Amino acid sequence: MKENKKFMQEAIKLAKENLKLKNGGPFGAVVVKDGKIIGKGVNTVTTNNDPTAHAEINAIREACNNIGSFQLENCEIYSSCEPCPMCLGAIYWARPKKLFFAATREDAASAGFDDSEIYREFELPVNSRKIPSKQIMQVEAEKVFKTWINLEHKTKY
Amino acid sequence: MKENKKFMQEAIKLAKENLKLKNGGPFGAVVVKDGKIIGKGVNTVTTNNDPTAHAEINAIREACNNIGSFQLENCEIYSSCEPCPMCLGAIYWARPKKLFFAATREDAASAGFDDSEIYREFELPVNSRKIPSKQIMQVEAEKVFKTWINLEHKTKY
Repeated sequence: MKENKKFMQEAIKLAKENLKLKNGGPFGAVVVKDGKIIGKGVNTVTTNNDPTAHAEINAIREACNNIGSFQLENCEIYSSCEPCPMCLGAIYWARPKKLFFAATREDAASAGFDDSEIYREFELPVNSRKIPSKQIMQVEAEKVFKTWINLEHKTKY
Repeated sequence: MKENKKFMQEAIKLAKENLKLKNGGPFGAVVVKDGKIIGKGVNTVTTNNDPTAHAEINAIREACNNIGSFQLENCEIYSSCEPCPMCLGAIYWARPKKLFFAATREDAASAGFDDSEIYREFELPVNSRKIPSKQIMQVEAEKVFKTWINLEHKTKY
């Protein structure tokens, strides 16, 4: 599995620039297809009031918009830091070919961006999580899934 | 932990309507603050070419935009289905007070939306995951974190 360092340099440069320009988080990411960058992202959580606007999410959204697809087939993602659970989830749904990252979860935690709690929560039963969670009205919601299953024309993803 | 069923009814209604209007996924979510809906979302993955556009993510983004904050303090999220790992990660970053959901992961899997692989991947070491992943250039990326740590004015999140 071979990386192209220039793309990681770009991701790290984005992270660095983001500190100067916007006081955004120190994170950058690029999506690469056929040797070209098709999407870039920096962390804009505080600058855009969007808790989902991590560098990887922003880069994936831009790349998908640019290629007109909800899948990043044959693409590579370069991120300046190991993706958090939210971003890793997004990466799995986007299905790129490869993922490269530079700093680790532990590095991010040392800088004040600790996502270890989220990893732990996934393993807990729903009713013992930190954010109180409760299941209600399952039967009503299942009906919508049944309608979906019986739709003739639908896009699978 | 007490729910208000009318908000879940709204989330399920959004999921149902989304099937008719856009052939989007059968998912809906609302964010509630002080008894009022401040954000709504449906799954727009295929309609907007955005793999991150799950109902919960869309609802969180709209709610945060509406209240001008990157945190959903004292808010409740009602989702027509148990959040996938990406959305659960987003919910943790957004920090609402409570989460209610209706259909389960297993229900979603039966309808063709299986996220069990993502849960499994979190437990695997980076180098044995389905999407090949590799760490490179850690030292360069750590320098950006060090710059961040020494910034005097920064927004913590």
